[in-house]
Amino acid sequence: MNQLSLPSLKTVVDEVFREAGAIDAGNVTTYIPELARVDPALFALSVCDASGAMIDCGDTRHSFTLQSISKVLGYACVLECFDDETIMRHVGVEPTGEDFDSIIKLDRHKRPFNPMVNAGAIAVTDLLLTRFGAEAAERSLDFFARLIGKEKLSVDEAVLASEQRTSERNRAIAHLLRNFKILENPVEDVLALYFRHCAVEVTTCDLARLGMTLANGGCPPGGGDPVLCPETLRKLLSVTLTCGMYNYAGQWVFEVGFPAKSGVSGGLLGIVPGRYGIGVFSPRVDEKGSSPRGVRVQKRLSAKLNLHMFAPD
Amino acid sequence: MNQLSLPSLKTVVDEVFREAGAIDAGNVTTYIPELARVDPALFALSVCDASGAMIDCGDTRHSFTLQSISKVLGYACVLECFDDETIMRHVGVEPTGEDFDSIIKLDRHKRPFNPMVNAGAIAVTDLLLTRFGAEAAERSLDFFARLIGKEKLSVDEAVLASEQRTSERNRAIAHLLRNFKILENPVEDVLALYFRHCAVEVTTCDLARLGMTLANGGCPPGGGDPVLCPETLRKLLSVTLTCGMYNYAGQWVFEVGFPAKSGVSGGLLGIVPGRYGIGVFSPRVDEKGSSPRGVRVQKRLSAKLNLHMFAPD
Amino acid sequence: MNQLSLPSLKTVVDEVFREAGAIDAGNVTTYIPELARVDPALFALSVCDASGAMIDCGDTRHSFTLQSISKVLGYACVLECFDDETIMRHVGVEPTGEDFDSIIKLDRHKRPFNPMVNAGAIAVTDLLLTRFGAEAAERSLDFFARLIGKEKLSVDEAVLASEQRTSERNRAIAHLLRNFKILENPVEDVLALYFRHCAVEVTTCDLARLGMTLANGGCPPGGGDPVLCPETLRKLLSVTLTCGMYNYAGQWVFEVGFPAKSGVSGGLLGIVPGRYGIGVFSPRVDEKGSSPRGVRVQKRLSAKLNLHMFAPD
Amino acid sequence: MNQLSLPSLKTVVDEVFREAGAIDAGNVTTYIPELARVDPALFALSVCDASGAMIDCGDTRHSFTLQSISKVLGYACVLECFDDETIMRHVGVEPTGEDFDSIIKLDRHKRPFNPMVNAGAIAVTDLLLTRFGAEAAERSLDFFARLIGKEKLSVDEAVLASEQRTSERNRAIAHLLRNFKILENPVEDVLALYFRHCAVEVTTCDLARLGMTLANGGCPPGGGDPVLCPETLRKLLSVTLTCGMYNYAGQWVFEVGFPAKSGVSGGLLGIVPGRYGIGVFSPRVDEKGSSPRGVRVQKRLSAKLNLHMFAPD
Repeated sequence: MNQLSLPSLKTVVDEVFREAGAIDAGNVTTYIPELARVDPALFALSVCDASGAMIDCGDTRHSFTLQSISKVLGYACVLECFDDETIMRHVGVEPTGEDFDSIIKLDRHKRPFNPMVNAGAIAVTDLLLTRFGAEAAERSLDFFARLIGKEKLSVDEAVLASEQRTSERNRAIAHLLRNFKILENPVEDVLALYFRHCAVEVTTCDLARLGMTLANGGCPPGGGDPVLCPETLRKLLSVTLTCGMYNYAGQWVFEVGFPAKSGVSGGLLGIVPGRYGIGVFSPRVDEKGSSPRGVRVQKRLSAKLNLHMFAPD
Repeated sequence: MNQLSLPSLKTVVDEVFREAGAIDAGNVTTYIPELARVDPALFALSVCDASGAMIDCGDTRHSFTLQSISKVLGYACVLECFDDETIMRHVGVEPTGEDFDSIIKLDRHKRPFNPMVNAGAIAVTDLLLTRFGAEAAERSLDFFARLIGKEKLSVDEAVLASEQRTSERNRAIAHLLRNFKILENPVEDVLALYFRHCAVEVTTCDLARLGMTLANGGCPPGGGDPVLCPETLRKLLSVTLTCGMYNYAGQWVFEVGFPAKSGVSGGLLGIVPGRYGIGVFSPRVDEKGSSPRGVRVQKRLSAKLNLHMFAPD
Repeated sequence: MNQLSLPSLKTVVDEVFREAGAIDAGNVTTYIPELARVDPALFALSVCDASGAMIDCGDTRHSFTLQSISKVLGYACVLECFDDETIMRHVGVEPTGEDFDSIIKLDRHKRPFNPMVNAGAIAVTDLLLTRFGAEAAERSLDFFARLIGKEKLSVDEAVLASEQRTSERNRAIAHLLRNFKILENPVEDVLALYFRHCAVEVTTCDLARLGMTLANGGCPPGGGDPVLCPETLRKLLSVTLTCGMYNYAGQWVFEVGFPAKSGVSGGLLGIVPGRYGIGVFSPRVDEKGSSPRGVRVQKRLSAKLNLHMFAPD
Repeated sequence: MNQLSLPSLKTVVDEVFREAGAIDAGNVTTYIPELARVDPALFALSVCDASGAMIDCGDTRHSFTLQSISKVLGYACVLECFDDETIMRHVGVEPTGEDFDSIIKLDRHKRPFNPMVNAGAIAVTDLLLTRFGAEAAERSLDFFARLIGKEKLSVDEAVLASEQRTSERNRAIAHLLRNFKILENPVEDVLALYFRHCAVEVTTCDLARLGMTLANGGCPPGGGDPVLCPETLRKLLSVTLTCGMYNYAGQWVFEVGFPAKSGVSGGLLGIVPGRYGIGVFSPRVDEKGSSPRGVRVQKRLSAKLNLHMFAPD
């Protein structure tokens, strides 16, 4: 199909943003107490193209924490640092058909199904700790910053502290991973880094730039050298596509048709290969941990701009 | 990337065929007794492009039964006949993370996860029976023939009879679907049609043509009107991509990166959007029901011809 | 403890009956349509001692169908006819921790956990069919009659026909058992006999006599030769104790402390070794398939008459 | 049946001990490294009757750690300290049909099934910590000592330290219990007490005395005031009967027919109401965590001395 010119893209984006803003569903996450303090009415959308042109709607300057979107970045880092065989011993690439924090399958298979569920991301974090030791936090955040296209990332220390205090389920998962000899480092060290990644602050502009970088062969929008090797990108997009939306992943491919990743803080990252990076934020999330407004935005953009990977040209 | 010219494509295909022929793994399926009678040494590969040009290697004239590859065709037929909402009431679109004939998830969720597992394909078959009644077998086989590009399809009656006699597990699944009010028609009627679809005879050329048709916006290779509407195709390829290779689907997207479907008779259909249709046949299958030679062929073709959906250009 | 004299036993029984009659909970079973036609207000209690003395309260002449209580009788018959090893190949003796018609565990372990869940009772019925062939219905009902102390048992043909038509879940279980090579006979033959056993008509007096026979070393109340060998009795009471009340069995031993078996028609059989046989009937059952009034009656009788197996003397 | 006189009891016990000593099966537990250091050839049997008379065979002076047998004592303590309703909020009384350290059911039901599996015993330990605070270790060990009939119990500090270091799976379970709001105290505090209970040192004589006390209405063999109230005893024996042998419990009641509890150190406690207390020790255990020699001893004693609860007199 013929590319829409930027003005008309703006018209579509504005319209989709307005339409999705009418959705009144979902609740602010409360299991991490600090997340419960956010204004539920916040709503932002940014779309970035390969030239670096950015279309912004709503509260795009409000920053929020990455939460599970950090799983994409952590896995990218591991894919750059380790060979496939080593990674596969610690975490697979199969969708689970279960909730994001499921323990049942983990206990049966003794290896996390994929890096987009908590167990898998904890295993990924352990690999980073094994590789970088005391420098793991600094090194991984530098890597994340490079992907996002910022000098430096800040961490929401209040959210970090809140997660540290309350994440009994993640502790259970981590100890189970120790039991299965998946984790090499002490549970609290691994979780401290895992929660730090979750607590990285971003805006929808950051997500849109990140999405465009991943959509563009690893090259930052507007030009520059690739920040990821092609192999990493191929694997990363594959796993994000099949596992990124948890047990909604099949429906997501069916309806939207490009890789995306949601976080319980209400962020949603969309990656449209060769086309756009999309960042949405709305802190009200559904029982699967995705923002209804964010999901609607991505669905409508996919339909209106013909972004589905199997859409006819 | 620049298209390889057809002669060099032939070189690649020949090389991949020769290399995969060295694999000595898997066993002929025995749970359907009639399938056990096949010569395990048979091996064939056909690759078709949009022009209709076909590259053939090995026993490409040997016909075999579709088995689970028929699930793609049955679902296509249902997508053309029913609205999404009706279909979704009978079968979802999520990968299961379980074996192809799993009952556990079905019993918990009371609806088949997707149309590529047995439970889902049985639900799909029931919908066809509801729609076409006594003409369902004729109508669905006509539809299959149109997709494959043949006048008429034949059915291997010995295999059909063999499955009819031995498929206690599918009977269990079908009665459970009756229990959940998913099936409207009598179990034996539904299974008779389901087994008939599984027993349709094809060659690798047929699969390659079918694959190219699905890869080409529904248009038969060499030209002609589309046999499927674009919406059907988008949904069909999405579900085939995420669910077609069962609990190997994530690994498949990771490594191969285009939709494919395997059958326990040893057939394997590959669909490379905009590029190729691929048919492989080798009757020795692994414990997940896929042919190791077929899997290897698709992996190598993907790598050598850069067919992965997220491969750099 | 000193036995209560019969008059004071009657006082206790009357009081317990009156008290339990005040319970307003549970619903008449509807998944077997014919069972839904019963008067929900019916309520009966019979207690029999070793001398054959019977205390009756309420609608003790109303007959109802055995349903799952027949599982005790079928298993008794099998224990008399086969050696342990053969029986154990077809059905185990472990509580499941799952619902009475669970399929999950069956699919994992490929053998029914115990004869008190549907899968196990269907396997038991298959053994009877293997042993007695065309005479299985007559022979097993004669055996049941002998245990209950009647010349002949009648079958509620309307309930039988109703179950035959609607039991898709049991059909699924039976086909799965065929798939696992547990069943040797055709599914419909096995289910026909299984449903026939379920549809045997009894009164609470019959249950109380049956219970007393099992409580009395197999000797009919009032005297006579034992109708079961001691080994059968030991095994039968053991399995009834640990598995008879499904996933309420642990709670039952904890609170009541003697073997019992419930049926979805609302019957409840209590067996107090050396003391009493108890029959209760109230057609309103809870979500676990037991009658709340029946459960209350047994609990109160246990407490007031000190019937718990681990009660202090 | 008529009681065997003590001399002939000794003959039976000696014979059973000799016979069971011929069993060459099972392995010393290695997942707690310190347990792996034991001499696998050790074998001891003690049988105590109500008079306090004790029959000893083999290495009855060798002490070993209670491990899971401590679950009986911990639950007894909780039954004496809390009302049923409070206890039931923290731990149920149903057999699981799963392994002793299963997580699957816990995650589904969000409450441990019973106090004889690890999750349930950890919940029980938490209740003791809530009740006794800093004195919990001293108070509970004093209570254990009273039941066993000793002044004071010693703890194997090497085994305790070994468990502390290695029990990642129990940590996972405990954090999951925190996640479900079952545990009120910090995980490490609860586990420290739990492991301490597991590491209490006993001999087979101690187990036999303990068993006889529980078999004798809570009265120590040879006379003395009861150390448990009748209600506690009734509940404790019920749960030990239905859940004490894990997913072997049904088989145990079927074949042996009295309450028993095994530990991975190789100890096995048998409680024959009104008759005997039995202690066996053999450090080689099977995959279900029970000693094959211990199991054989209990089975043979049950058969030869007619100890099954449903045995004919």
